[in-house]
Amino acid sequence: MRNVKLVMAYDGTDFCGWQTQPDAPSIQGTLATAIGRITGEKVLPQGSGRTDAGVHALAQVATFRSESRIPVANLVIALNDILPGSIRVLEACEVAADFHPRTAAKSKTYRYRLYRPAICPPFFARYVWHHPYPLHFETMQEAAARIEGEHDFTSFAAVDPEKPRGRREVEAGGKPGEYSSGTSNVRTIFSSIWRQEGDELMYEVRGSGFLHHMVRNLVGTFLLVGKGTIHPEDVIAILRARNRSLAGATVPARGLYLVNVEY
Amino acid sequence: MRNVKLVMAYDGTDFCGWQTQPDAPSIQGTLATAIGRITGEKVLPQGSGRTDAGVHALAQVATFRSESRIPVANLVIALNDILPGSIRVLEACEVAADFHPRTAAKSKTYRYRLYRPAICPPFFARYVWHHPYPLHFETMQEAAARIEGEHDFTSFAAVDPEKPRGRREVEAGGKPGEYSSGTSNVRTIFSSIWRQEGDELMYEVRGSGFLHHMVRNLVGTFLLVGKGTIHPEDVIAILRARNRSLAGATVPARGLYLVNVEY
Repeated sequence: MRNVKLVMAYDGTDFCGWQTQPDAPSIQGTLATAIGRITGEKVLPQGSGRTDAGVHALAQVATFRSESRIPVANLVIALNDILPGSIRVLEACEVAADFHPRTAAKSKTYRYRLYRPAICPPFFARYVWHHPYPLHFETMQEAAARIEGEHDFTSFAAVDPEKPRGRREVEAGGKPGEYSSGTSNVRTIFSSIWRQEGDELMYEVRGSGFLHHMVRNLVGTFLLVGKGTIHPEDVIAILRARNRSLAGATVPARGLYLVNVEY
Repeated sequence: MRNVKLVMAYDGTDFCGWQTQPDAPSIQGTLATAIGRITGEKVLPQGSGRTDAGVHALAQVATFRSESRIPVANLVIALNDILPGSIRVLEACEVAADFHPRTAAKSKTYRYRLYRPAICPPFFARYVWHHPYPLHFETMQEAAARIEGEHDFTSFAAVDPEKPRGRREVEAGGKPGEYSSGTSNVRTIFSSIWRQEGDELMYEVRGSGFLHHMVRNLVGTFLLVGKGTIHPEDVIAILRARNRSLAGATVPARGLYLVNVEY
């Protein structure tokens, strides 16, 4: 039985997210169907973590187990033949039987794209958040730097009362067991940077793991800083309060990209 | 009564084309609804010509008549507020009462994009035709140059027996009356050029007017040249034959852009 690792890019716009859901097209489900057509096996591919509806990926990592002997190079071609153009397999390779793309991940990198000019070209509408309003960029950069390091990110996590906290963490790509309680909202941010690139402001963050909606809530909070509603140093007070209601709004999914998973 | 001219960009993927159709979202119909919501008037905007389902525009020109006194700069903002992100109004201005965007057009420019690498990123899937197969580019450039000038393009026009020829010409953006019969398939091509740009081959053509499917059938024929199936000089023989069956296949709409309309 082989354990096959895939690196995938996808346009999340027309999917309900990574995870299979009844009656809605998911990345996981679409991939499972394509694998099934090639190998004849019923599999549920495992991802490095979920992405929400509308969130894109440049290099999501997934694995599936298969008895098939099809060479991995041919698998890439065959999968891309079957998958819709909005999902591409970039690479495939065989990995150790005990490799799991979520638990083996050391860190992940996300990017958020803000498009600044007054009119957003129709060809970008699915791939950026159009935000043409005045922003004080230097204070946003300052606020972003302040969240680097190890913090409890409860204030930036989705409040989702339907799900027990431990379970939500697993879904968000956290690593249960890494922290003492297994339900900790503590994460380490290795880098947190805003940069300007052409007509866009881009936020890029690399961390040990991310809670549900964490990147989108951080961006919403940095926008409060950029508008002057709060000060850069307030971000630390928001972190300490462990209170979602103090942070900014969740920005739209369409600007968010899972850029890379580091092992 | 004002005659208002709009310059518009759109992602044609999710539309049945420019022209209003029953039970399918069109650019024209979506624009008409947005104008109606702003002015309270029922209008049918006129375009410089139709674009087919899936064909994009960087600068389609449309006009509509209105009693509304709303300043044109405000109209751009108001329309973009209502329209989906896949349709953007780039400019609005008031023009002479007798200006019609189709009959006043002196020429139009179209572009076709071929994406060449083995894997097409999901974010390009709607905006290029993925064609990773070997092509002899110099012979395609040579063939493209040969169609410059005045020719009868019957061999490159869609065969659509349901519609009388004269009507089809009007729909395709031709100018009835410009040629003696009013049903002529003669057009003048001012420039016809293939160029390489990054990972893409781009065909750009400027002409007095274009028959239905003409650009896509030209590209399909240039690909036959690029594959070595026919020679560059065969393009002239195909033109002379006035026989659609001799030309190449119609390439997919998603790679085609109406780039500009010249007045």
